[in-house]
Formats: sequence, structure tokens, C-alpha cells
Amino acid sequence: MTTHLNAWQAIADKLKGIEIITESNQIAKLSLDYYHFSPILYEQLKDKRADLVVRPSNEAEVIKIAQLCYCHQVPLTVRGAGTGNYGQCIPLEAGIILDTTKMNQIHWLKPGMAAVEPGVKMAAFDKQAREIGWELRIAPSTYRTATIGGFIGGGSVGMGSITYGQLKERGNLQRVRLVTMTETPEVIELSGDEVQQVIHGYGTTGIITQLEIPLAPAYPWAEMIVIFDQFMSAAKFGQALSDSDGIVKKLVSIHAAPIPSYFTALQNYLPSGKHCALLMISEYDLAAMKALIAEYQGEITYCKKAKEIAGTSLLEFAWNHTTLHARSVDPNLTYLQTFYFTLERVEQMYQYFGDEVVIHLEFLKAGGKAVPAGLQLVRYTTATRLNQIIDYHEANGAFIANPHVYTIEAGGNKTIDHQKVQFKHKIDPCGLLNPGKMSGFSKLNLRN
Amino acid sequence: MTTHLNAWQAIADKLKGIEIITESNQIAKLSLDYYHFSPILYEQLKDKRADLVVRPSNEAEVIKIAQLCYCHQVPLTVRGAGTGNYGQCIPLEAGIILDTTKMNQIHWLKPGMAAVEPGVKMAAFDKQAREIGWELRIAPSTYRTATIGGFIGGGSVGMGSITYGQLKERGNLQRVRLVTMTETPEVIELSGDEVQQVIHGYGTTGIITQLEIPLAPAYPWAEMIVIFDQFMSAAKFGQALSDSDGIVKKLVSIHAAPIPSYFTALQNYLPSGKHCALLMISEYDLAAMKALIAEYQGEITYCKKAKEIAGTSLLEFAWNHTTLHARSVDPNLTYLQTFYFTLERVEQMYQYFGDEVVIHLEFLKAGGKAVPAGLQLVRYTTATRLNQIIDYHEANGAFIANPHVYTIEAGGNKTIDHQKVQFKHKIDPCGLLNPGKMSGFSKLNLRN
Ligand SMILES: Cc1cc2nc3c(=O)[nH]c(=O)nc-3n(C[C@H](O)[C@H](O)[C@H](O)COP(=O)(O)OP(=O)(O)OC[C@H]3O[C@@H](n4cnc5c(N)ncnc54)[C@H](O)[C@@H]3O)c2cc1C
Ligand SMILES: Cc1cc2nc3c(=O)[nH]c(=O)nc-3n(C[C@H](O)[C@H](O)[C@H](O)COP(=O)(O)OP(=O)(O)OC[C@H]3O[C@@H](n4cnc5c(N)ncnc54)[C@H](O)[C@@H]3O)c2cc1C
Repeated sequence: MTTHLNAWQAIADKLKGIEIITESNQIAKLSLDYYHFSPILYEQLKDKRADLVVRPSNEAEVIKIAQLCYCHQVPLTVRGAGTGNYGQCIPLEAGIILDTTKMNQIHWLKPGMAAVEPGVKMAAFDKQAREIGWELRIAPSTYRTATIGGFIGGGSVGMGSITYGQLKERGNLQRVRLVTMTETPEVIELSGDEVQQVIHGYGTTGIITQLEIPLAPAYPWAEMIVIFDQFMSAAKFGQALSDSDGIVKKLVSIHAAPIPSYFTALQNYLPSGKHCALLMISEYDLAAMKALIAEYQGEITYCKKAKEIAGTSLLEFAWNHTTLHARSVDPNLTYLQTFYFTLERVEQMYQYFGDEVVIHLEFLKAGGKAVPAGLQLVRYTTATRLNQIIDYHEANGAFIANPHVYTIEAGGNKTIDHQKVQFKHKIDPCGLLNPGKMSGFSKLNLRN
Repeated sequence: MTTHLNAWQAIADKLKGIEIITESNQIAKLSLDYYHFSPILYEQLKDKRADLVVRPSNEAEVIKIAQLCYCHQVPLTVRGAGTGNYGQCIPLEAGIILDTTKMNQIHWLKPGMAAVEPGVKMAAFDKQAREIGWELRIAPSTYRTATIGGFIGGGSVGMGSITYGQLKERGNLQRVRLVTMTETPEVIELSGDEVQQVIHGYGTTGIITQLEIPLAPAYPWAEMIVIFDQFMSAAKFGQALSDSDGIVKKLVSIHAAPIPSYFTALQNYLPSGKHCALLMISEYDLAAMKALIAEYQGEITYCKKAKEIAGTSLLEFAWNHTTLHARSVDPNLTYLQTFYFTLERVEQMYQYFGDEVVIHLEFLKAGGKAVPAGLQLVRYTTATRLNQIIDYHEANGAFIANPHVYTIEAGGNKTIDHQKVQFKHKIDPCGLLNPGKMSGFSKLNLRN
């Protein structure tokens, strides 16, 4: 144990000039993320800890850290803001955490495009981008705290996805620069389809040091709450709005009762028993919105223009923030992530599960179509029951991206991405980057 | 005959101060449009003439003209630039042509929205709008000459429809102001869903004097020609690009050989026998484009950034400009307008008709999905054969918006729009506005 400590001390010594954290409470904090949304991951990951946290300020320091990790064969796990939900940045095999939050420079910002360091926070970025009329295309509901690098490495969708689809759609990431975990770390750049190697890669395929991201025109986004008597009217309204090509939108989030009752701060606008839509719509299209809402017998209870929004954005009640609010009222609630593909399937699940699985839909574009994705809330009892619920969905044609597992493959992707695995063999032949997260990779494969 | 002339002289006298055209060659020119794309309409409409053309400068003059027409029970047909293809502004029952081209003021122009007079030319408008970073959402390939009022009254789709859908999509027209053809002409304003009453109304439901239109963010649009060995590769590429939510686009136009051979000015980029795609893509997404083109074995033969485009835009080879170029090489060619809905149906028609119907696709959004619309070129022989071709398409599940008929209903809409008819009864009870174009309306209905 003492030797061990000494070894770490030796490593720390070699990193002189780079910020290092060794205090155990801090290390504990920086070793974990929002994995606790899942009672299953909670049990599996709660005791995982890094040995050391480093906070480089630039790419040169990253290279130095990578070299040292390779030399000592020490695992390295990159961390942005640590808001992931699947333990993406929890070090399974201890080692070093590389915290990117000091790498927060915007290199350049032009109409349509920007180059940033990975630790730039999304909301902070948007504030600057909006000054020239642009903003991020897609951002998660953790937008205020999450980093751009962390979103690319561990996220997938968010506000804006109703227009631009998932992060992994061609065009949504222009170029990345990364440092390899090799004997002599190299800096390489990926563009075109190659960028897919790092998207949702959980930091297993290189340490991103720069990103070139396409931007979206910044609209003044009005925020609206619309309530409905029937859940299926709300769901159909969500689909119709998402299919309305003449209405520019950023968020179409639909909640079955009793979910609205969990939104404590919004109770004035959410009469008990009603189902609701939380929306972000271009101010220029509000007249058209009113006609559409009337068609679906919705009632607007809240409508604020961009300039009138003072406090929290409705975004912070949507996407996985819904789960956050629900769990703060009832910690037995957890969630699933589902592609229903059709509203018929949504309705079937709504009827079938009753109170046990309460439906929360986010509409997004997938393959050119607007589809309802579920982040439905599940009243958790046992792991066995949770798996039964997943099985029932899949047996009935829905696709579940299981948020209760920590490998890339067991979650969204389901199958092993051989290109990513091959790429990792070049970038990280010894498997030191976030080990255990890419199940398709094994050091034995090196011999093939 | 003399009495007749005297009657017109009396009318002209009452319009003192308003520009009036009585010269017969000029009247002939201003009585016709691009109806001659259809050999059938050509025979039906070629002799139609107005008695008088008036060119008001403002709404007050329009009111004066309407009042006089009502008083004398004289038909009035509104005309913008007269580029319609179905004889939209050809006066079936003679009377007065109201030419809007002097009503060309932009009332205001703000980010996201503008208010214009109907005679504003689209390209001229865009030039000003781009100075503040915005542009028209949708515009036809006659963009350089056509008026905004004429597009609303007689057009339907164009560049931009791959993002914003058809003109009639909720949100694509914010508000209109119009003058009624009643004893005491009134000025009324329509907003929300009410604007549908004038969209593609052929000027039968009021004289538009002002339009409030939503704008689109102005991107620097790169223009590209991509060639393909196989037509179906080009078609599938068009669909894949249209479904790529991470690539911002304005034009996806696909042409089977020998159509590219009709584009005389583009021959350097169009090797004989190849099929081609004419594209307008955000410059920011060109890297992603290259990967997509490679996937479909396309070859880029032309790629110009916005600033490098000096001469004609590729737009002027797309939409119905394709037909224009084809007919200038071979005047026996005419065209159809088709919703194929699926690529399987495109392929079936491609195989079935061979040289007789050569496929030209324009992708656009309809109901939230990108669909291939056909403006296929037809080697014209007889009206009977043309109808057989139409019937075959419809029997096999395609929808044809017949461009060889001159009423609203026989063309795109197929069924009588009772709301439009009802609305017309209020706005134009005597049926003086462009009589004969709305077949659902008859003066007899007045008694119901
Ligand atoms: C309440 C709540 C709501 C959420 N809503 C959404 C949502 O709407 N959409 C969504 O997609 N996600 C959502 N998430 C998950 C998460 O917040 C986002 O994906 C967020 O963008 C992650 O950013 P981060 O900086 O916290 O990344 P982290 O959690 O720190 O890292 C995420 C992954 O990226 C890797 N990574 C980080 N930086 C780099 C780098 N420089 N190089 C290589 N790899 C790197 C890490 O190793 C890790 O595997 C939500 C989470 C919570 C708790
Ligand atoms: C080569 C070619 C290509 C074309 N490409 C396209 C295309 O891509 N997409 C498309 O949609 N169309 C296309 N068209 C048809 C036509 O050019 C467009 O629809 C154009 O926008 C019509 O505008 P205009 O000013 O010429 O209208 P006009 O032809 O003058 O008028 C069109 C109709 O609108 C009515 N109207 C005009 N002004 C008013 C008013 N103030 N109040 C009430 N009614 C009014 C007229 O009565 C008439 O019925 C094409 C035509 C040609 C010849």
C-alpha cells in the first residue's frame, strides 16, 4: 500500500506544473457521475475511485500525461463535467482521471462554425456564439454545466435534435483533434466520416483536445407549456408539430400525467391530472403554432418570448432532467430510453403498463423522419422486473438503449462497432483509455 | 363593337391617375403566361385576351379599380410577373388585368420576418434580406423575375422546400392583407390558418395588397453538380441527402439521362450518358457531403462556394426550369408533376416508360418526410396518350398534380376546397375575380 502510494507520488512528481488533485473526497467526487439514476449501476459503480486527478490546461500537458500513463501502464479516464448517466467517466480500473475543465478556450468562432477546446461549457459557448447570431445545433438538458467534449464523448441527443437529429448524423461534428495513448503520443485529426470513431466513444478512442463544430442559426426561442386532457392528444400533437416543416422548433417534449406534478417550479401552469407539452419554438412561428394547438385541443398555459425568459428554461424539465425532477420527488423512479418508432406503439405501451411505466416522449429526427423517443419513467422494484419491462418493449418492436449498463455496446449501440474497435487498436493498443467500457476491445485482439 | 370600345373608354376615364395599358400587343403579352409548356393548354388558351391592363401603385388605387369592376360587373384578373404554368393569370372571360409590378415596396424587413407588397420580385427581395442575414424560405426557379404575390397566388414549391416543405405548410405565410371584390371593397387581413384561403388561389379569393412572410436564415449556399453511372444511385443519393438531418440544404434535384444533355451551359460538367444531381448545400457542411457522395459512388464535377458563383445559379436548371431547357432543345417535350412517395415507385416508372417519360426528381418535405416529387419530361404525342400516362401513374399509386388543366381543382388539389369556395362567396360574391378558375364556385350557389 505504501509502495503503491509512493508509485503515485512518483507519477505526480513527473507532472510538475500540471494541476493535480490527490485529496480523497475530491477524488471521490471526480470519480463519479450521474450513474445513480440507475439503481443497477449504482450498486455496480458506487465504490469505483481513481487514484489521482489531473487538470491539464492545454494539449501539450495532455501529451505529457498520456506519455506518462503509457510508460507506467496506468489507466486514464477523461472527464468533462461528469454529468453522464451511464458511468461513462467512472474509472472501472482506477488510475488517473484527466479532467478537461481547464481546457476551455474557444479558438475561433465564425458564422456557421467554431473550433473549441473540449472543456468549453455549452451554455457559456452559446452566450458568445449568439452575439454573432449562431448557437449550438444540439445540446443536452445539462447544457448549463456539461462540456462540449463530454457531449461528443458521452452524449447523443438534446434540444435541437428535432431539427438536426442525433449527434452522430453526418455533418453534426466537423473535425476533431485527439491525442493517442501510445508510446510516443501523437496528435491526429479526424474529419468526414472518421469523426464517428470518437462520437459516443466514452473516451476510449483518444483524448479529444479540439473540436470543430457546425453551428445553427440562433432564433429567439419562445417557450411554451401546452396542456391536454388526453395523453394521446398530446402525443399526436407532438408528432404533428414535429412534422410541421413550416414551424421552426428546438424542443418538443411530451409528458403523461403524473409527470407534470413532479415539476415543482412549474405548478402554476400544470393543473393536476393534465398531460403536457414543453416546447421551444421560433418566435416568428407563434401564429402558426396557435392554429396547430387548437387543432389538437391543447391549451396554452405558459408562453414566454425569448427576452421574457428570466429564470430556468423549460429545457431543464425535458430530456433527462425529467428523470431528475421525478427522482427528487420519488427516488424509486428510474427510466428507460426507447425508440418507439410509431405512435401506435406508444399507445400500446401506455395502456399496457399503466402506472408502472409513465411515458415521457422527446421528438427527434432520425433518418429524416420525426420520431417519438421515450425517456419513460419506471417505478423500480427489482432488476428482474426491469429486464422484463425491457423485454416486453423489444418483443413488441420498440428499441431500447439500455441506460442501466456501462459499456458502449450493451447500451445504445447493441452490436460491436468493429471500426471503432480497430481504430482503438491504433490509438490505444494497450487499452489504457477508460478500460472496461468498450467490450468489443480486448488486448488479446492485438495479436490478430 | 363601338359601344363596347366606348364602354371601356368610360372605365378607363374613371381610372385617371392610374397607369393604363390599351395597346393591343402589350395587352396580348400581359394576358398570357407560361401556359405553353402544355400543348393542351396552349390550344385552349392561346387566344384569350384582356380588354385593358391597369397598373396600380398602391392599395388605394386597387380599391378604386375593384370598385369600378364591381360597379360595371367586369372580370378582373390579377397578374404578377406572369410566369405561371397553368394559365393562372390568363383571363378566360376577358375584362381587366391588374398588374401588380408597380406595387413593389418592402414595408419592413426584420430578422425572421418581412412585410411586402405583392409585386416585389423575389431575387430583389433576397438581395436586401441577405444584408441582415435572412432570405426567403421557399422560392421557385423563376425567382429572378417572379413576384412574391404571384408565388403565393399561383406557385407551390421551390428551392428551400427540402427544408420548409410546400408553401401551404402552416407557418410559411404569416399574414395577408387583401381587397374584396364587393360593392364597397373592403380591406381585410388573414392570419393563422385563414391564410390558406389565398395560397394557390389563382387570385380568385381577393386581391392581395400586402404579405407578411417568415424568412429563413441566409446560409452561404455552395452549388454542386454530382454525376452518377446509374440513375437509381442518383435517386437513392437524393433521398439519403434529403434524409441527412445534419446537412443543411436548399436544393436536391436529380436528373436521369438524357436530361443533363439539355443543359447547354453546363456541358463541361455533364459527361454524356451520365445522370446528375444539382445541389445547393450550406458551405459549412461540405465535408459531410463528400462522405455521403462517396457512399453513393457519385463524382463531383462542379463545386462552387457562394462567393464564387458569378453567372447563373444551378437553380435555373432545376424545378420547372428543367422543362424550359428541355423544350428549347426539343419542343415536343412537355412534363408532369408527380408525388411518387417512394423510390420503388420511381424505379418502376423509370423502367416502364423508358424514353417516353424521362425522370426528373425534386426532393421536398411533405408531412415531415423528404419525398421525391417528379417533374418528369414527357415526349408528347397526343392528349389521349398523355392521359394514359397519367392514368398509369395513378393506377400504380402515384399522385399527379396535372399541369395540363387550368382550374385549381383539376390541377393539384383534385377535390373542391369548400372553405375556399365559401370564402370566395364573401370576398367575391359575383365571381368577378379570375372567373372560370375555381370550378367549385358558381354564382348560383349564392342562393344557398
Ligand atoms: C439531468 C441530466 C440530463 C441529461 N440530459 C441529456 C440529454 O438531453 N442528452 C444527452 O445526450 N445526454 C444527457 N445527459 C447526459 C450528459 O449530461 C450529457 O451527455 C453531457 O453532454 C455530458 O457532458 P459532460 O461534460 O458531463 O461529460 P462527462 O460525463 O464528463 O463525459 C462523458 C463521456 O465523454 C468522455 N469524454 C469527455 N471529455 C472527453 C475528451 N476530451 N476526449 C475524449 N472523451 C471525453 C468521458 O470519458 C465520458 O465517457 C443528461 C444527464 C443528466 C444528469
Ligand atoms: C421556367 C419556369 C419555372 C418555374 N418553376 C416553379 C417552381 O419552382 N415552383 C413553383 O411553385 N412554380 C414555378 N413556376 C411557376 C411560377 O413561375 C411561379 O409559381 C411564380 O412564383 C409565379 O409568380 P408570378 O409573379 O409570375 O405570378 P403570376 O403568374 O403573375 O400569378 C400567379 C397567380 O397568382 C395570382 N396573383 C398574382 N398576384 C396576386 C395578388 N396580388 N393577389 C391575388 N392573386 C395574385 C394570379 O392571378 C395568378 O393566378 C415556374 C414557371 C416557369 C415558367
